[in-house]
Amino acid sequence: MSDQKQSNNPPKQFDDDSVGFVESRRVQLFNREEPLELECGATLNEVTVEYETYGALNQNRDNGVLVCHALSGDAHAAGWLSAEDKKPGWWDNMIGPGKALDTEKYFVICSNILGGCKGTTGPSSINPETEKPYGMDFPVITIHDMVVCQEKLIQQLGIEKLLAVVGGSMGGMQTLEWAVSFPHRVRAVIPVATTYRTSPQSIAFDEVGRQAIFNDPNWNGGDYYGQQPPERGLAIARMVGHITYLSDQSMHEKFGRNLRLREEYGYDFGQEFQVESYLHHQGTSFTKRFDANTYLYITKAMDYFDLTIGFPSLKESMRRADCKFLLIAFSSDWLFPPYQMKKMANALRYNGIDVTYVEIESDYGHDAFLLEAEKMTRMLSAFLGYLYSEPDGGNHQATI
Amino acid sequence: MSDQKQSNNPPKQFDDDSVGFVESRRVQLFNREEPLELECGATLNEVTVEYETYGALNQNRDNGVLVCHALSGDAHAAGWLSAEDKKPGWWDNMIGPGKALDTEKYFVICSNILGGCKGTTGPSSINPETEKPYGMDFPVITIHDMVVCQEKLIQQLGIEKLLAVVGGSMGGMQTLEWAVSFPHRVRAVIPVATTYRTSPQSIAFDEVGRQAIFNDPNWNGGDYYGQQPPERGLAIARMVGHITYLSDQSMHEKFGRNLRLREEYGYDFGQEFQVESYLHHQGTSFTKRFDANTYLYITKAMDYFDLTIGFPSLKESMRRADCKFLLIAFSSDWLFPPYQMKKMANALRYNGIDVTYVEIESDYGHDAFLLEAEKMTRMLSAFLGYLYSEPDGGNHQATI
Repeated sequence: MSDQKQSNNPPKQFDDDSVGFVESRRVQLFNREEPLELECGATLNEVTVEYETYGALNQNRDNGVLVCHALSGDAHAAGWLSAEDKKPGWWDNMIGPGKALDTEKYFVICSNILGGCKGTTGPSSINPETEKPYGMDFPVITIHDMVVCQEKLIQQLGIEKLLAVVGGSMGGMQTLEWAVSFPHRVRAVIPVATTYRTSPQSIAFDEVGRQAIFNDPNWNGGDYYGQQPPERGLAIARMVGHITYLSDQSMHEKFGRNLRLREEYGYDFGQEFQVESYLHHQGTSFTKRFDANTYLYITKAMDYFDLTIGFPSLKESMRRADCKFLLIAFSSDWLFPPYQMKKMANALRYNGIDVTYVEIESDYGHDAFLLEAEKMTRMLSAFLGYLYSEPDGGNHQATI
Repeated sequence: MSDQKQSNNPPKQFDDDSVGFVESRRVQLFNREEPLELECGATLNEVTVEYETYGALNQNRDNGVLVCHALSGDAHAAGWLSAEDKKPGWWDNMIGPGKALDTEKYFVICSNILGGCKGTTGPSSINPETEKPYGMDFPVITIHDMVVCQEKLIQQLGIEKLLAVVGGSMGGMQTLEWAVSFPHRVRAVIPVATTYRTSPQSIAFDEVGRQAIFNDPNWNGGDYYGQQPPERGLAIARMVGHITYLSDQSMHEKFGRNLRLREEYGYDFGQEFQVESYLHHQGTSFTKRFDANTYLYITKAMDYFDLTIGFPSLKESMRRADCKFLLIAFSSDWLFPPYQMKKMANALRYNGIDVTYVEIESDYGHDAFLLEAEKMTRMLSAFLGYLYSEPDGGNHQATI
């Protein structure tokens, strides 16, 4: 079952390296006979997944590259859905003809995650049992559950083995989960600005965001669909998040202590500093496009993420992987600091896995994975190009 | 006018280096004829200040050391108010016989800041004009206003020139304000874990905390006295604050990813990780002892703090100072990072001011100023001892 959201656009001028107009598709995966079994023990009988693809699958079906999105992302990673769009997909600077994920060579796929609010089943979807939105009856999901969904989609698309899975932030967690949960379904993973285990500091920030939502009188135990949603709580959660996406340095460069509307202090509690109005704008605009319950579920999934669970060490845990790794960290990223990625690189090398670790110098903080397209393109183009050109001969190196 | 809050305690065993039982006093400063003129342009006709003193003022009245407290502190810096107290004053590990602020040598003073909620006039105080609590009618105050109040108190205590002003975090901002606003009333300042200018990142965190309070339905425009206060909003604000007081490293050491009550994930939205329950505990217990409106006013005062305002550069700004400086920063403090203190040290040196800059290696993050008593004691004891032993001959060095 697939349902096309959009087509037949008026002509529009595109850059040569744009994928142009794209379509979002929806597919229903799993069913009552073969439900999605979640890590929490619950099952979902029906899962709709929204996805987009760019480029074409080749005859060997070996040029598939799955892009995993971060917390606020969606399936619309590149191109334009309509001529009215004000901006292209969220990773358009990385996906297109001649770009890092070169759509003339690769078949690029991006799907909205399980638990999301952009077309894939999540807490705002209709629960077939009650015919009302799930709300907080939606089961708690994990990064592993998201990846199980993606794997099902890849099957449906007729791809036995992906060339690569790439993603930043929470998308990076998904790439790592692919490497250990489906080691024979992927030739390489490219985790960017991420971690193998969410730190207590990140959990703490996530919990603050959730409490801000819980404390919004409109949240109403998650049962707010069709009513006034908990916009202020969600906006606060997004504000907290945004602080962690920027670096001290980038905030200095972007705003300094500049005032917004006047030259001197107003001695009131308005949004006086530019950094405040920036955050308010980010928070408020986020509430227009995002569901508060999805925010709760996705941050919880991130908090649970810990590849070492059930293993005596990170090294033992990474032994499950059987693909090449390109790890990319950013020097000023304090949400997922480079030292965590370095630790993972060492654990992979210990297991004789072919790993390239790159730390890109950048002042942009965690957000760099969306902004440092030029530097990332050099890495990804070379890595994918080389990978694609060589036969799939397994990924463990001969020597350690 | 002075009013003693407490006295006549039953006997209690104290350590030799404890100041023992102490008393909080209140004094009324300023009046209708000579009101407190605030930076915002408003005036306060009556200001009550709560303070404590430890040790004795010597005959020359030149052994006074003023301690400035941080956001959640109060006048009760050392000793015990009653035999029932569960813990001593907030900087008891630094104040007492033989300690860093040696009460056998120095007369130590600590007062609750203007805008506070621990005895000094603030938004929860009765507005004499309306005979109701000020609430949001309280004027917006600044660090400078707090220091003007402290200076008035020092006058009342008969001290012409303080030996030193010392404080951490927002207390450190006050020490710096003393140095530039009352350069001839202080021989040395000891700013600890602070900055000369609040960064956009700190402003951003403060604004998140304020929004959490504003968004609490019980906040009611600040008019909640005698009713249910906005405890959940204030708790969220405190949670955000606490994250910034710890370091990534100290959180790892303190909590890791340990779960609180069970061995495996519960797949629900309870406080599952120890870091979450720690933050909740910090948030909730804070609401029992702190006023939400004071939180708003004090964070705003910090956001406004910028010693360079009205000056072409930090160097020019620091030219106003005429005292010795001992600057103490902590390596893992990311709220007020060492590089900011280093910058200030350089600006002071440029002006020929006698400055000692120390960066203490510590994993405790910003909280180190409350925890690294031993390392700080070595610095402070030596610095104050030397200062006290030499005559007050001005503080500019002969050579640059």
